[in-house]
Amino acid sequence: IKLTRLTGAAIGKGNFRHFMEKELHENPVVIGDTLHRMIDPATRMPVLPELAIDLRAISRMTVSACGSAFYAGLTARYWLERYARIPVDADVASEFRYREPPLSPDQLGLVVSQSGETADTMAALRYMKQQGCKVMSVVNVPESTMARESDLMLETIAGPEISVASTKAFTAQLTVLAGFSLALAKARGTLGIAEIASLVEALMELPAKAAQVLNDDETIRTLASQIQDARDVLFFGRGSMMPIALEGALKLKELSYIHAEGYPAGEMKHGPIALIDPSVPVIAVLPSGPLFEKTASNLQEAAARGGRIILFSDAAGAAKLANITTHSVILPDCDPFVAPILYAIPVQLLAYHVAILKGTDVDQPRNLAKSVTVE
Amino acid sequence: IKLTRLTGAAIGKGNFRHFMEKELHENPVVIGDTLHRMIDPATRMPVLPELAIDLRAISRMTVSACGSAFYAGLTARYWLERYARIPVDADVASEFRYREPPLSPDQLGLVVSQSGETADTMAALRYMKQQGCKVMSVVNVPESTMARESDLMLETIAGPEISVASTKAFTAQLTVLAGFSLALAKARGTLGIAEIASLVEALMELPAKAAQVLNDDETIRTLASQIQDARDVLFFGRGSMMPIALEGALKLKELSYIHAEGYPAGEMKHGPIALIDPSVPVIAVLPSGPLFEKTASNLQEAAARGGRIILFSDAAGAAKLANITTHSVILPDCDPFVAPILYAIPVQLLAYHVAILKGTDVDQPRNLAKSVTVE
Repeated sequence: IKLTRLTGAAIGKGNFRHFMEKELHENPVVIGDTLHRMIDPATRMPVLPELAIDLRAISRMTVSACGSAFYAGLTARYWLERYARIPVDADVASEFRYREPPLSPDQLGLVVSQSGETADTMAALRYMKQQGCKVMSVVNVPESTMARESDLMLETIAGPEISVASTKAFTAQLTVLAGFSLALAKARGTLGIAEIASLVEALMELPAKAAQVLNDDETIRTLASQIQDARDVLFFGRGSMMPIALEGALKLKELSYIHAEGYPAGEMKHGPIALIDPSVPVIAVLPSGPLFEKTASNLQEAAARGGRIILFSDAAGAAKLANITTHSVILPDCDPFVAPILYAIPVQLLAYHVAILKGTDVDQPRNLAKSVTVE
Repeated sequence: IKLTRLTGAAIGKGNFRHFMEKELHENPVVIGDTLHRMIDPATRMPVLPELAIDLRAISRMTVSACGSAFYAGLTARYWLERYARIPVDADVASEFRYREPPLSPDQLGLVVSQSGETADTMAALRYMKQQGCKVMSVVNVPESTMARESDLMLETIAGPEISVASTKAFTAQLTVLAGFSLALAKARGTLGIAEIASLVEALMELPAKAAQVLNDDETIRTLASQIQDARDVLFFGRGSMMPIALEGALKLKELSYIHAEGYPAGEMKHGPIALIDPSVPVIAVLPSGPLFEKTASNLQEAAARGGRIILFSDAAGAAKLANITTHSVILPDCDPFVAPILYAIPVQLLAYHVAILKGTDVDQPRNLAKSVTVE
């Protein structure tokens, strides 16, 4: 019998009302512990476990996963392409496996799963291997089938997650993938040492900033009271924040049964704008940065059509859009690189508080299972 | 001054109440006319216009577009991978252009746009060219900017589309892309002549089958009366039918302001199942074929949770699921290859009839523009 950290961990709620609340509040520690494995404290450079893979032999990547884990993979696509200049495609596992896409051995497969047992993701992993690809898995259970069957396993140091709706495991997946993106950029020489050091610094500041977000959740509780009666909600984001919009919508759906839908902000005018009226809150995850103005202009159009605009941004972003927002959640300033990780937390908090107000079963939402081990 | 087919066409509603109704009923003719350009009547083999591109030099493809045109491109991904065994990635243009993915000259770009002027798609085209790729466009306006700037233009023979919500232009895009997939399979030798001939046959039968669907829309009118009061609707599909689920949801959103959301059926258990109760109709586009059983089992779970299951299938599929469906729309049998084209029509019809019952502005839904020529 091998004792794992899991069996040793105290699985109780402590002073928290729900596992989800406890797990939300573990975000800073989990991000810190996960970074601790990925960043060499002496050099402040990204490090990877003993590699079964030659990173310089990879010429493209293909990502597959389900649910929130897929959104983590989708976020990584932006990081890997931008920083490591490697082309990445991404597809949900239940589509990927039956699409049977042609793959080549210079393509690294990437699968993401909290449990490491998700059936469709497991099938995607096996398909990738069959096609001759090396596969890297990002899992929270190092004894899982996926960890065993992949060539390289990167572990999220999230500890056991009991709440069906993922919180800390998702941010830990993002953290691992951010660290891996920098390691790959380093191996491929696509970023200089100074740039990498500055992005590592941005990662290292995350635990403190995450704690700041969690300590100041009064704004989000108030916001929750304003959207609890909505039947429909739209979430918008662009670039690496787009998957966070999808995740925010998924979390709200799962926990509060509000029909929330996430969308790339640039697609708003190609359909979803028709839904917008004062009864449908429009939520944007929009830190300051290069794509701010584009999304701001989409929000202005939504506001002109009667939409109630709710903004998650930093102080500068919130000030710029004060005239059209009905509610702003102001987050600490951060490098756009780490914004998806930081902004994941308040959207998790929002779903939590809405669920509390609606009185739904927070830790065990209706119809859902923690790991989907059947197709 | 060059007279185009557009200026020569009679742009009136004829005996139809709306342009959308007229355009819906043009589906069979448009599919036929578009096929006429793509299939050599003597050999019954796919043909392409004089090529500026050596098809055998292409080793992968990248598809970008917006809204319905993106869903046409997403459907093509399944066809191109399955029949021409070429890897394809796909992304909405507003994300693709800012992701700035690394591309290589052996990668063929593909953009799809009715007007040929969609701003984000145009930017995607220019980005692809800048990266050294050849670009193929599928447009309905051969004088458009996209047609001029691409290396190869494949024209949809849809005639002018006045209704803001696309119908015949979408099915024509699918038809062109289906024909191109077979042409590429032929050039790459991934399908034998007999297989191609049989798939061409399936395409050639579409106009008659489309007419059959349109002549028998009583079932869909009845169905429309049953969902007109729904506030939320979920559409599910798998494989090449998944983008048709997305398109069905988009059309219903645009025309009836019902919050419809499309999802790959395999993702249902990773979140959307929490929304399911008797007030949320669940619509599946599910012809008989290799993925039937997988999706049927998802629908069984949805039914077990109180979902009202509405099925678009063929007679055999409808019979198999009769015990869990509250309503079935039975379509003519067809080869799974052409099912996305045939099934696009009843989901368009459904959105049309719901809009009529709700009294919304069918040809000019609120907040929407026909071509989005700004970002």
